Amino acid sequence: MSNLAHSPAWIRFSAECKLADRDAQHLRILDAAGLRVDLSAQAWSPRFEQAGLTLLAQQGFEAARRDLFEGGLCNWTEGRAAWHTALRAPEPPAAVAAEVREGRARLRRFVEGVNARNAYRNVVHLGIGGSDWGPRLAVESLAGHDTRRTVRFASNIDAHAIDDALAGLDAQDTLVIIASKSFTTTEPLANAARVVEWMRQWGVSDPYRHIVAVTANTAAAEAFGISPDRIFSLWDWVGGRYSVWSAIGITIALVLGLDAFDAILAGAAAMDQHFLEAPLTANAPVQMALAAVANRSVLGFASQAIAPYDARLRHFVPWLQQLEMESLGKNAVRNGTPASVPTGATVWGMPGTDGQHTFFQWLHQDATGAPVDFLLCKQPDHNLTHHHRLLLANCLAQRSALLRGKSYEQALEEAQRTGGDPEQVAWLARHRVHPGRRPSTLIVLPRLAPYSLGALLALYEHKVFTQGVLWDINPFDQWGVEFGKELANKLAHDLTEPGPSGVSDLDPSTAYWVEALSPSVKSR
Amino acid sequence: MSNLAHSPAWIRFSAECKLADRDAQHLRILDAAGLRVDLSAQAWSPRFEQAGLTLLAQQGFEAARRDLFEGGLCNWTEGRAAWHTALRAPEPPAAVAAEVREGRARLRRFVEGVNARNAYRNVVHLGIGGSDWGPRLAVESLAGHDTRRTVRFASNIDAHAIDDALAGLDAQDTLVIIASKSFTTTEPLANAARVVEWMRQWGVSDPYRHIVAVTANTAAAEAFGISPDRIFSLWDWVGGRYSVWSAIGITIALVLGLDAFDAILAGAAAMDQHFLEAPLTANAPVQMALAAVANRSVLGFASQAIAPYDARLRHFVPWLQQLEMESLGKNAVRNGTPASVPTGATVWGMPGTDGQHTFFQWLHQDATGAPVDFLLCKQPDHNLTHHHRLLLANCLAQRSALLRGKSYEQALEEAQRTGGDPEQVAWLARHRVHPGRRPSTLIVLPRLAPYSLGALLALYEHKVFTQGVLWDINPFDQWGVEFGKELANKLAHDLTEPGPSGVSDLDPSTAYWVEALSPSVKSR
Repeated sequence: MSNLAHSPAWIRFSAECKLADRDAQHLRILDAAGLRVDLSAQAWSPRFEQAGLTLLAQQGFEAARRDLFEGGLCNWTEGRAAWHTALRAPEPPAAVAAEVREGRARLRRFVEGVNARNAYRNVVHLGIGGSDWGPRLAVESLAGHDTRRTVRFASNIDAHAIDDALAGLDAQDTLVIIASKSFTTTEPLANAARVVEWMRQWGVSDPYRHIVAVTANTAAAEAFGISPDRIFSLWDWVGGRYSVWSAIGITIALVLGLDAFDAILAGAAAMDQHFLEAPLTANAPVQMALAAVANRSVLGFASQAIAPYDARLRHFVPWLQQLEMESLGKNAVRNGTPASVPTGATVWGMPGTDGQHTFFQWLHQDATGAPVDFLLCKQPDHNLTHHHRLLLANCLAQRSALLRGKSYEQALEEAQRTGGDPEQVAWLARHRVHPGRRPSTLIVLPRLAPYSLGALLALYEHKVFTQGVLWDINPFDQWGVEFGKELANKLAHDLTEPGPSGVSDLDPSTAYWVEALSPSVKSR
Repeated sequence: MSNLAHSPAWIRFSAECKLADRDAQHLRILDAAGLRVDLSAQAWSPRFEQAGLTLLAQQGFEAARRDLFEGGLCNWTEGRAAWHTALRAPEPPAAVAAEVREGRARLRRFVEGVNARNAYRNVVHLGIGGSDWGPRLAVESLAGHDTRRTVRFASNIDAHAIDDALAGLDAQDTLVIIASKSFTTTEPLANAARVVEWMRQWGVSDPYRHIVAVTANTAAAEAFGISPDRIFSLWDWVGGRYSVWSAIGITIALVLGLDAFDAILAGAAAMDQHFLEAPLTANAPVQMALAAVANRSVLGFASQAIAPYDARLRHFVPWLQQLEMESLGKNAVRNGTPASVPTGATVWGMPGTDGQHTFFQWLHQDATGAPVDFLLCKQPDHNLTHHHRLLLANCLAQRSALLRGKSYEQALEEAQRTGGDPEQVAWLARHRVHPGRRPSTLIVLPRLAPYSLGALLALYEHKVFTQGVLWDINPFDQWGVEFGKELANKLAHDLTEPGPSGVSDLDPSTAYWVEALSPSVKSR
């Protein structure tokens, strides 16, 4: 397994992919935890499907999946488990059952308590990356207009973010959630310090009574000033990008209600069951992963576009960028050598139909383009049927247009309708050719609800995990995130202090800007 | 010029690029209309710079630029000018001076009129793509907390968008802007129809008195019911993605004030002068375009990441996606043949530091990664110096880390500090290697203000135009956007009517979903 590219299963997978149907002349729709996943517009043939199974077997998929669910050390470079499935299991695994149950019960008591007192009209959530996108996506996509509480998210170290988040809120009526696994992350801590200052300006006598921490570092949270009854535990075996299932979901429970949070967990648990039990050829995360690996490593697509045809799902894109690019954006395989095939794709996108007027031009007429994951909800939560019909029609039409393309002959026929000099018409037609054969997946949710959102997130989590297995990459570490931190601290020092910080051999440009920007950031 | 790849100037450009300094051992900062553009971390050498000049000359850059500013038919497939620079020129070109001045004066009178009457606390802007991102970016990045009016944007055909936009507004006190060059675009028209209905529900006696249209199709706007005194003209020679400089900017003037809108135009006009007059080696849009072409077509980067280190600039990313991917996301060169080198990159990103916790892992450790445009504002509009220092330090640190990387030797030394089995340490170090040599550009704004924002947008407009010249691509058409429309209309018909719509040979999956989704969208 040291060289995937030269392994028998890969050679077969790659060859069968190139021979497979890429014109969607087959129908392939998988049912998974209430979602319908249509892979018809991905490369497929019976022989390619078999090659996928052989590749999964060669890469040890079944053992890896067992490890994931049983708390094995899936995160092998950091020697720990990635046991987020335990957090949503109706019956948590025995080894962690007591602490998981206790955590759920404490969260429930806390939320019921503040609800009973009708306390806190406002919630301010301070996290970043994995501690931010999950709650933000859930709350902003499911909230509708009537929510129990006003919620604001501040993630960035740019203080315009925290300024914006606090604007117009009454501090006396505000609860602050600090979501930080390590409780050392710059952004939530600096923003929390600002919130404490703001509360004092509002005359809040004990700001720390207004703060809840969710962290694996309870000692640091206590040292910050938060009382133990307001600190919720995270565990070492919960990765930041999977933490929405943990007490970091408290913001969801406070804003959407405990039932909604429970339903999100239940939807994810149902997808876990599907991933564990569905035959591999009907297993949605597995088949999506095989398609993603084929698109990236065989067909050569550098990126994956995401087009949710639901404006409420705009935060699905950054949530998925975080999950996928932080998990698969690495090049070392298990033994430490560089991967022998291209790995993690660039993930990008925005809701359709906005995307149609933003970058679909590129999807249609760039020489290569990108595969697209289309998402839609069968039932909307409004009564404007005409709008919904147009939305669905646009989604299906774009998907179909990307697949079928437009040949020169078709473009010529079109251009001829407006008439004119034949040479000119032929020339114009050449600008109107669309290559087509862009692969896509269509995911249909019955309705955008907590249960289906939970299932959707777990679907992508398991897809990404399976890609990690196929590529022999550890999707649970993030060495590249750590790298800039030390340098940032040293440069922050250099920006204000004349003495040496220990940064050696700065390039001329960085040295120039440290000097030039320093007057802007001297402490008052 | 029929085959760029085999032309002498390209062969030289490509060869010199590969030989150039890619480790930022030089300092190269250009001044442009108050912005500073640092290209030090892009490939550079004196010989490569010369090769760029030769390539510009071969591709006819100076004549093309003259055409752009003189109203020549730069949009050659549609036979029209792309004269957005005329809209912001202090002295508009004679051929259009009268209508441009009249347009500006009418906009001014209208805004002064409603301000004098203290009318309309709320503005709802209905546009999509080019008629949406520009005003949205300007308003949402410059508004701060105190604005003259509340503003909402609704672009998507998904009715949750218009529902959200109208929620909580008093219709009697609301002015609606319909921004649509053609006045046939599905989204703004469907949303406008919904707004009229909503106004009637609120008891507004004449909803059309609350609506302003900005369009090149004044007849259609009148037919919709809007009186001529509330219709502002666009011209055929203003492309949708350049329309923020036109009366579509009325939303900016209503929310931020006329002075702010004037300052945005002035900043753009200053960048126009820079683009026209600065020597080519010190010309920021030109040098950014050469770097972009080198990165995409010589060094093989498929995408371009954008990281504004200012949370207020989050809409800069979709604005630029629209500008760049709709302009350059095509593969036919002027004579109609496919481009001989890779063209338009995928543009994606989000504000730092959020991006650091979302996808920077991929930028650091993917085998290829992507070039990054970093943006920062020297002075913030808040007083939290500590936050600002950390923000700037993070920006400089990430840029430097992407450039220098981390060798195996460095990673080994780091890993050894924590000790352990030497073989294990060596293995772990291999997972912590960062290739480095990721090119980047740093753009420094003195402060985020209307003038600097105008200059920034014009900088990218001219960069994209210059890339079009270098690649021999028309950046002003968008045949790929048109393509899905006809099919969408037919499928919208099929979703509700039993009879044939004229869509032939649907693939099995599309046919399946037309059938399966149709019960959800039958008219009530």
